[in-house]
Amino acid sequence: MTTAIEFLREKAARTDQALREYLASWRDVPDTLGEAAEYTLFAGGKRLRPALALGTAEIICGDDAVAMPAACAVEMIHTYSLVHDDLPSMDDDDLRRGQPTAHVKFGEAIAILAGDALLTMAFDIAARAGRSEIVRELAQAAGVAGMVGGQVIDLESENRHISLEALRHLHACKTGALIRVSVRCGGILANAGPEQLEALTRYGERIGLAFQIADDILDVVGTEETLGKPVGSDEAKHKSTYPALVGIARARELAREAADNAIDALKAFGPEADSFRALARFIVDRES
Amino acid sequence: MTTAIEFLREKAARTDQALREYLASWRDVPDTLGEAAEYTLFAGGKRLRPALALGTAEIICGDDAVAMPAACAVEMIHTYSLVHDDLPSMDDDDLRRGQPTAHVKFGEAIAILAGDALLTMAFDIAARAGRSEIVRELAQAAGVAGMVGGQVIDLESENRHISLEALRHLHACKTGALIRVSVRCGGILANAGPEQLEALTRYGERIGLAFQIADDILDVVGTEETLGKPVGSDEAKHKSTYPALVGIARARELAREAADNAIDALKAFGPEADSFRALARFIVDRES
Repeated sequence: MTTAIEFLREKAARTDQALREYLASWRDVPDTLGEAAEYTLFAGGKRLRPALALGTAEIICGDDAVAMPAACAVEMIHTYSLVHDDLPSMDDDDLRRGQPTAHVKFGEAIAILAGDALLTMAFDIAARAGRSEIVRELAQAAGVAGMVGGQVIDLESENRHISLEALRHLHACKTGALIRVSVRCGGILANAGPEQLEALTRYGERIGLAFQIADDILDVVGTEETLGKPVGSDEAKHKSTYPALVGIARARELAREAADNAIDALKAFGPEADSFRALARFIVDRES
Repeated sequence: MTTAIEFLREKAARTDQALREYLASWRDVPDTLGEAAEYTLFAGGKRLRPALALGTAEIICGDDAVAMPAACAVEMIHTYSLVHDDLPSMDDDDLRRGQPTAHVKFGEAIAILAGDALLTMAFDIAARAGRSEIVRELAQAAGVAGMVGGQVIDLESENRHISLEALRHLHACKTGALIRVSVRCGGILANAGPEQLEALTRYGERIGLAFQIADDILDVVGTEETLGKPVGSDEAKHKSTYPALVGIARARELAREAADNAIDALKAFGPEADSFRALARFIVDRES
């Protein structure tokens, strides 16, 4: 059986190759912009979202290559969101994964434009698959009722106590929607049937929740070395988190429950979905 | 014969209605984000790009409605680019069309996010047409070798003397690509034949050039009242312009030449293209 780490590594390596080929195909691009795009895209992310797109296609049709346009697109959208979230007028973060953030390295204007470029080109690569519904799903997940909306809610929730329900909604928009749509796009491109797509969508929603709770916990109990950023940064920014609202012990329980529910969503699938089951466990047990 | 002003007004009214219906269809969107999107989208733009998309479809198939998804998408992309260009780290403009810019009114974070949202949702609405090639054309025109690339070149050219050729390349990227693609998307959605599409693409390129030269001239000779922004702002920012490089008289000649060339590109079309001929004249003769 493939472990979750092996699964993620294999999908990350193939995604990286596809992303590098795509960047190499860019013509007449100002050097600074190309450098900033490459710097931010290859900053050592886990490639969770591409792994979900590719893994879903593998489960459905045995060939993950059909989902590569979606895998690259979700990673480019994820990367743009990090670049813009880190900006001085947003979260004002100087470090990400142990490296200077884009605006520290390239200046604020180029960071904004590199984010804009990644978001824009994500739709170019997504549209290569020739399926308009993928483009709409991605735009809606990344847009006003998804990721961008979630970031607005996040900014407006700083320094305020919010309910557990409000926190769940915030995360469902800010991080959940893109994780969910990674699975959905992989399924659509592999021609999943309606019931398969529904089951995998539930998996995506639940693994997204598990991931976010685990992330909140790591921000409290992780070490700066493994995280690549200062520990306790959520608390310093007065952001509401699961540990802050329900305590560490209960947050761990909620994360495990979400992972169990994610695995439960896969019950109609056989051993072909084992990598996704292992991934659900890994997400709540990881240390960085 | 319809005058250019009537043509623009009619297309603007229909585009505005479609944009309002689209915004009204947004659900679960934070109020601030919806307000910022509406404020920026309805700030009194001429809707040149939608008029080009709709007008092209009308010339080709007599029905401009087929191009409405592209018309809305290009205007949303254009609007996002203005919002981001106005930011303090970019052009640092406080006024646009006589009104406070988005970051002055809503703060920098919301301005960046509203721009991100407009760009993202542009691809949602474009994809409604069900044609992936439209999405790819739009992304490429708005992306690293188009609009975003042009903005990077523009920033890097400030306070430097650049050649006429370099200025032409800058504008072809920064403003030309989106004007050109407006025409192309309208043509593709109306099922234009290859020769028709090529002729209209040339029209789009030339009218884009005429528009930009005229814009540069207006920045020197216009009045603050008609422009809605301070006159001479290009010079104040040490931006290279056509009048600065070749003088006002020669710039006027070049604008008229570009308009003549745009009209010449339409020679295979009959009276159905008269509104586009009038538009080419109008663009170089307008006073705001």
